[in-house]
Amino acid sequence: MKPVGPIPAGYQSKDGQIAVAGHTARDLVEQGGATPLFVYSREHLTKRVGDLRATMPDRLKINYAIKANPFAPLLKHMAGLVDGFDIASGGELAMAQAAGLDPRAISFAGPGKRNEELEAALRAGVTLNLESENEARRALAIGERIGAVPRMAIRVNPDFELRGSGMKMGGGAKQFGIDQARVPALAKEIIAAGAEWRGLHIFTGSQALSAEAIIEAQANVIDLADQLASEIGQPLPKLNMGGGLGIPYFHGDEPVDIAAIGAALDKRFSNLPANLADTDLCIELGRYLVGEAGIYLTEIVDRKESHGSTFLVTDGGLHHQLAASGNFGTVVRRNYPSAIATKYDSEPSEEVNIVGCLCTPLDRLADKAHFPRAEVGDLVVIFCAGAYGATASPADFLGQGAAREILV
Amino acid sequence: MKPVGPIPAGYQSKDGQIAVAGHTARDLVEQGGATPLFVYSREHLTKRVGDLRATMPDRLKINYAIKANPFAPLLKHMAGLVDGFDIASGGELAMAQAAGLDPRAISFAGPGKRNEELEAALRAGVTLNLESENEARRALAIGERIGAVPRMAIRVNPDFELRGSGMKMGGGAKQFGIDQARVPALAKEIIAAGAEWRGLHIFTGSQALSAEAIIEAQANVIDLADQLASEIGQPLPKLNMGGGLGIPYFHGDEPVDIAAIGAALDKRFSNLPANLADTDLCIELGRYLVGEAGIYLTEIVDRKESHGSTFLVTDGGLHHQLAASGNFGTVVRRNYPSAIATKYDSEPSEEVNIVGCLCTPLDRLADKAHFPRAEVGDLVVIFCAGAYGATASPADFLGQGAAREILV
Repeated sequence: MKPVGPIPAGYQSKDGQIAVAGHTARDLVEQGGATPLFVYSREHLTKRVGDLRATMPDRLKINYAIKANPFAPLLKHMAGLVDGFDIASGGELAMAQAAGLDPRAISFAGPGKRNEELEAALRAGVTLNLESENEARRALAIGERIGAVPRMAIRVNPDFELRGSGMKMGGGAKQFGIDQARVPALAKEIIAAGAEWRGLHIFTGSQALSAEAIIEAQANVIDLADQLASEIGQPLPKLNMGGGLGIPYFHGDEPVDIAAIGAALDKRFSNLPANLADTDLCIELGRYLVGEAGIYLTEIVDRKESHGSTFLVTDGGLHHQLAASGNFGTVVRRNYPSAIATKYDSEPSEEVNIVGCLCTPLDRLADKAHFPRAEVGDLVVIFCAGAYGATASPADFLGQGAAREILV
Repeated sequence: MKPVGPIPAGYQSKDGQIAVAGHTARDLVEQGGATPLFVYSREHLTKRVGDLRATMPDRLKINYAIKANPFAPLLKHMAGLVDGFDIASGGELAMAQAAGLDPRAISFAGPGKRNEELEAALRAGVTLNLESENEARRALAIGERIGAVPRMAIRVNPDFELRGSGMKMGGGAKQFGIDQARVPALAKEIIAAGAEWRGLHIFTGSQALSAEAIIEAQANVIDLADQLASEIGQPLPKLNMGGGLGIPYFHGDEPVDIAAIGAALDKRFSNLPANLADTDLCIELGRYLVGEAGIYLTEIVDRKESHGSTFLVTDGGLHHQLAASGNFGTVVRRNYPSAIATKYDSEPSEEVNIVGCLCTPLDRLADKAHFPRAEVGDLVVIFCAGAYGATASPADFLGQGAAREILV
């Protein structure tokens, strides 16, 4: 038997099934039209942002990183909750524009921005988080050609990293941002070239669960921003402190202690250096805001035995749930939080493997999990499906196609 | 410095660039319209199948597993080369039908076939490779309802596996096929129910480079098929011996010795047991037929330094090349064969990291590789891109979208 991850707070049962916003799993599938289905909860999203605001200093702005989940109805809902957005491509710029987001609240980070993407961003009035000197010069030239004043920030590759983060984005040689030692020279260059100076973006890592590590990284970010502002020679207009807040996926993971982070920021904000006294301060979160607000429902198509093991074969799989299958940046596969959605109140009674419908042994959603007995036609739920699910999976693999998505 | 994998045979240079079918990389990009671009070579596909036929017994039929690459023009080209097709979903059935493939030369394997998929397959006259007793009964009931005689084979989960295979599909508890001990009872049941009995499908693994291991697995498959036919009580109409032939991806990998496999099969086919004397014998290959026939071209958008390391940032990435980035079923990341496409004849002169345009440290296409100096605007080529590239990658990740594809 292998444990499954912790089920996020906020899910209830109804008529023996898991329910979201008062709708049972079967009702949700009827609303969505078919399985496999991603269901995102407005209520969960609203509560998550509200809880975060209640613990963070009022001054701290909260941005949503669209890459975590760009589903259009979800984007529109987030627009009413957060202060700004981060995009990572021209494709995401188009999604942001389609959702009616204010371009002046959008920043665009990402190495490898093509000239067309830079031009579209400049025309829209989006802030560019510059990833290299070369990109800065390309963007300045495009701005001059099209007669737009570029809004420019610099993404810093800091010498430190976020300890314990799932993805390290700083410390040592990286493709992201500009090494901190070269930042002042570039900032002076773009200011001299007439760009609207929008400050710094310092992203140190993501998916960290240790408040202590996040507090340390945020303190380092503020110190570095102060130091760089001094070297640049003017107070900082804006500082994007990055994200880093993770969500529990695996057995033994604990939710990050946001109260501790909020308290540390409160203390720090009450005593900021002059360079940051009037700075627009924000954090940029993706997974933390939306990850736990989504579930994935898939129907059991077959129940089979092989050499004494039971396999529940579903109509979903890694083509929608690459990370849950353990195949996306994971060394050791562990079970995501999951359950039998239509036997949500029943006691576990057997050990099963839940697999997808793909013809590959990689397609496993739960390994040796202890669940109530499920039959063909029952629904399986995978939690933490709100971030890096639908768009971070190879939907067209084996001719399967995308899952449906609904926001309720 | 880390080595890159071996460049497959059949690629030339022209005007200092890599060329496919006489077209330089830049010409190919012009034909394809933009980077990132997958280019598949008709000539390479034709030669690969021809070389294989020349070494295998005439009696052995060669099937193409569409899952490796379902690009429509490639499917049509393969239709003129191979004897049959394997599909893994209703989506692939639709692709096969759109390409005009003969349904009687198509078999459909895959756990988790939905009822709609079974019905579409039965209506088309495709052979079902049954994955469980439950699936068999569902398909028989559907056949009766729609008045179609089901063409049915059984996919066997053998007690042995293909040694050294990248993906093990047999040996122990598996979601694929039916444990060998239960096969005779099910075969008798479906024959008694009036199905057209199409024999056995025994797939032991994939991506093996050892001829010795493949020869051993094929011998075991033939022995098992003979034994099961005896227990079923009639000669076998058809035996799909599975695939298994791999291609070299990494430094030190050697091409599989198909001459040795052909010689062993020749010997074995000259002395088959009575149960297999008139059996339709085939192997089913995906990656081996198309993998080396494809390349992926992506343009360098930025060249940057960070802490003494050089990064070439491209407009492609893991959203088209998940496996090459080391994030699909890989434990230790190693470099795929790759090169600077537009400096194909130049001597290596520097160590570089080739990364994609995504905002994640997972997006690395070549790590510490030794290449000629490349500038913004140069093209990078990733080899072995013909199989499990475009459709086995999360194309919509970070709003990027699919790459272009051409067959030349």
